Amino acid sequence: MFMAAISSHPLEEIFHPRSIAVVGASKNEQGTGWVGRLLSFGYKGRIYPVNPNAKKVNGLKAFPNIKNVPEKIDYAILNIPAHLTPQALLDCAAKGVKFVHCFTAGFSETGTSKAKQLEARLAKIAGDRDIRLLGPNCMGIYCPASRMTFDADFPKKTGPVAFVSQSGTEAMRLVFLARDTDVYFSKVISYGNAINLDAPDFLEYLADDKDTKVVACYIEGSRQLARLTAAVKKCLRKKPVIVLKGGLTGNGTGAVAFHTASPVGSKTSWDNFFKQTGAIPANTMGEVADIIQTLLRLNPPKGRRVALVGRGGGIGVIAADICERAGLEIPSFSNATRKRLGQIISEAGVSTRNPVETMAGMNGAADFYLRGLPVVDKDTETDIILVQIAIDIYGGRHTDLTPEVKDAAYALCAVADSLKKPLAVALFTGGHPKATGEALIIRKILTKAGIPVYSGVESASRAIGKVITFYKTGSCN
Amino acid sequence: MFMAAISSHPLEEIFHPRSIAVVGASKNEQGTGWVGRLLSFGYKGRIYPVNPNAKKVNGLKAFPNIKNVPEKIDYAILNIPAHLTPQALLDCAAKGVKFVHCFTAGFSETGTSKAKQLEARLAKIAGDRDIRLLGPNCMGIYCPASRMTFDADFPKKTGPVAFVSQSGTEAMRLVFLARDTDVYFSKVISYGNAINLDAPDFLEYLADDKDTKVVACYIEGSRQLARLTAAVKKCLRKKPVIVLKGGLTGNGTGAVAFHTASPVGSKTSWDNFFKQTGAIPANTMGEVADIIQTLLRLNPPKGRRVALVGRGGGIGVIAADICERAGLEIPSFSNATRKRLGQIISEAGVSTRNPVETMAGMNGAADFYLRGLPVVDKDTETDIILVQIAIDIYGGRHTDLTPEVKDAAYALCAVADSLKKPLAVALFTGGHPKATGEALIIRKILTKAGIPVYSGVESASRAIGKVITFYKTGSCN
Repeated sequence: MFMAAISSHPLEEIFHPRSIAVVGASKNEQGTGWVGRLLSFGYKGRIYPVNPNAKKVNGLKAFPNIKNVPEKIDYAILNIPAHLTPQALLDCAAKGVKFVHCFTAGFSETGTSKAKQLEARLAKIAGDRDIRLLGPNCMGIYCPASRMTFDADFPKKTGPVAFVSQSGTEAMRLVFLARDTDVYFSKVISYGNAINLDAPDFLEYLADDKDTKVVACYIEGSRQLARLTAAVKKCLRKKPVIVLKGGLTGNGTGAVAFHTASPVGSKTSWDNFFKQTGAIPANTMGEVADIIQTLLRLNPPKGRRVALVGRGGGIGVIAADICERAGLEIPSFSNATRKRLGQIISEAGVSTRNPVETMAGMNGAADFYLRGLPVVDKDTETDIILVQIAIDIYGGRHTDLTPEVKDAAYALCAVADSLKKPLAVALFTGGHPKATGEALIIRKILTKAGIPVYSGVESASRAIGKVITFYKTGSCN
Repeated sequence: MFMAAISSHPLEEIFHPRSIAVVGASKNEQGTGWVGRLLSFGYKGRIYPVNPNAKKVNGLKAFPNIKNVPEKIDYAILNIPAHLTPQALLDCAAKGVKFVHCFTAGFSETGTSKAKQLEARLAKIAGDRDIRLLGPNCMGIYCPASRMTFDADFPKKTGPVAFVSQSGTEAMRLVFLARDTDVYFSKVISYGNAINLDAPDFLEYLADDKDTKVVACYIEGSRQLARLTAAVKKCLRKKPVIVLKGGLTGNGTGAVAFHTASPVGSKTSWDNFFKQTGAIPANTMGEVADIIQTLLRLNPPKGRRVALVGRGGGIGVIAADICERAGLEIPSFSNATRKRLGQIISEAGVSTRNPVETMAGMNGAADFYLRGLPVVDKDTETDIILVQIAIDIYGGRHTDLTPEVKDAAYALCAVADSLKKPLAVALFTGGHPKATGEALIIRKILTKAGIPVYSGVESASRAIGKVITFYKTGSCN
């Protein structure tokens, strides 16, 4: 576990501290505070609660001041009122702490000049004393390998994705969204007001981080846009970078002022950022999760031509429109493909063109996956297979569809390995509790088999369209 | 039940036939065919199965030909091979049947000239013999009041929405999507290739239908675009009309050819249609369902200025951007509002501006709904309240959140009635099975109380933005 800390990058240690002090550890935190969270998540380093009014916190000996801790402290979390943070930071400096995470909020984001002055003081102390300060007003670090976390319910499993997020709740949102499609993280950083450590610091580090294959960012603004641009470019030479810029509109800009008070920058400057870097732009956290799945699971398609597979003529028409709006094409299959599909599907009124319809019900779908998908795979006119499963229509009926749903999912998995074309699944759930449950079963089976699953054609085509554009223009392949 | 049939409109009877013949009733249909469906849905008129090789179908006496049925037939369903349909239609004419639904597919949508000729023959017979023909290649009629249906699992409850759909699966999709938000239908018509009865016929009827308050359409094309435009205009003078046009893109146009083979029309002609009529345009069936909920449940807002309420600074920033893209505004609250909100929320780093953050957890949210929403309601700078519930972040934890989730939903319901501003809820679920279950509980409680619930800020703002535009420019209020 501590091997990685030997890495030469100066930020490596922030993810693998051998000891953490929690300054302002709450006497009665009962497992939900910072100490309890680290304990229950299994952090293996030493934890030192600091609280002048406590002898013990969560069973651990507490110290009146960080300076009283007899051992070396690699990382300190400040969980104290804002006005006490400058002195605490000075104490950390005196103790030789290199990394400090200031969880405490109530600085420039409040809009008061007093709070802004306090923040400036904090920034100056950190700069003068050579402390790398994370925050203030942020959740800090989640690194499953070292069992650091800001949420005890985060997965302990590591994965190939890093997330650099100016927002703590957005970090939580992405970790949970990803977990539910079986995608995990190497490092997640919630960095808040960014008065010392900022997004470029982490991007420069992640460019060379061997545990990270995909980088996602949620950025509200940066005091160092030129440096950020360079850092994203550096990263993109090695791995894909997705950027959700919060505050691109007038509304959003106003909201940022009272969240992290970041300099949001003009829309033009961010348009330039995306143009210059080639980072993949996203508008919602759901889209970020979809793009991550696409990058990790969809083999790079040879082109934008999609074979749409799924029951329902109207569903096919609407899906074709949606795909075109996302920059994808739905050409007609070759005559050879249509002829072969016609031999499989004998039902009147069912298209063998593109979109091609599966036979009726989940059983009909399963049958088509086994016999029809190999035919679609050989079609010369298309590059990607997108299977629509309309679980909203077939699921949630009075009969129990679960066995059929499982059969269809396993049929898809069985055939997936033999397909040469990239395969994606759009699983539209609707809102019925039973259909929703059945959709979750399918999704679990498919994602375990490494097939990307989206909540509908809209989200699938949007993510796939953006990733294809990235592969065509991006700098990392 | 048959009172409505007295109405003067010539199409009234198609929704309230006193007897239905199923031509081609399957001997072994075992409850899943047309006869079984009508029986299990509780159709109260007389059903006459027609099958030369059966004595009984589903317990009902079968007749060799519709002409042998001793009683008057109001409505016939053709469920026989395509090449037999012209003779069957002639038989229906001989029997004096006024309304025939041709479920059978395999006509112009196959693309063969033989099938096109067959379709033309069918159209000519219907025209010559004064039969109103529905289809071919369609699912027909769902009218809960008369217990006609094409799906035995549709709700038996009636409601204020009519849906005129060229696609049967899209009709199923919308009925189920609506049901899951407690919205029901007066009439649903799946009309397929539209060689005789077409969308304008139904829209002209629905304009004066007292049971219908909102009309939605899924249209792939029309041979009578001018008449359709006039019919939609007529309807819009009385009630809102939502139109999802399938095949607006090159991809979609191709797909239509093999679905209903409708003349799709150019993008310009449909742009003109929307401009001339003022119908509300939608791109997906989910959006249609969202717009319906908005029209039925959101009191018409005075303007586009939204008060965003919900936990998470980054979530608020992203939501503000999304709202702006949907044509909504997120102005800062008045100073008076901010001052009052500041007395309620004392937590550092939590915004009282707009978006305003609720306190931590579902309990914090419930508390804010009761004490904070009345303050937001009085704010002079905003017109609508949109509450975000990030169940993805709070739900699905190891503790059981259900009681807290219910408390929060009931708190929202308790305060909703006293609010002067329209109230909407964006309930983002994520993908965790437990969080999803918890979200469904909240949704049920809120929709039962008449509060519109959307699957996220993206879908909420899109639907609300379109409905506000409609109220400002539409012709029906």
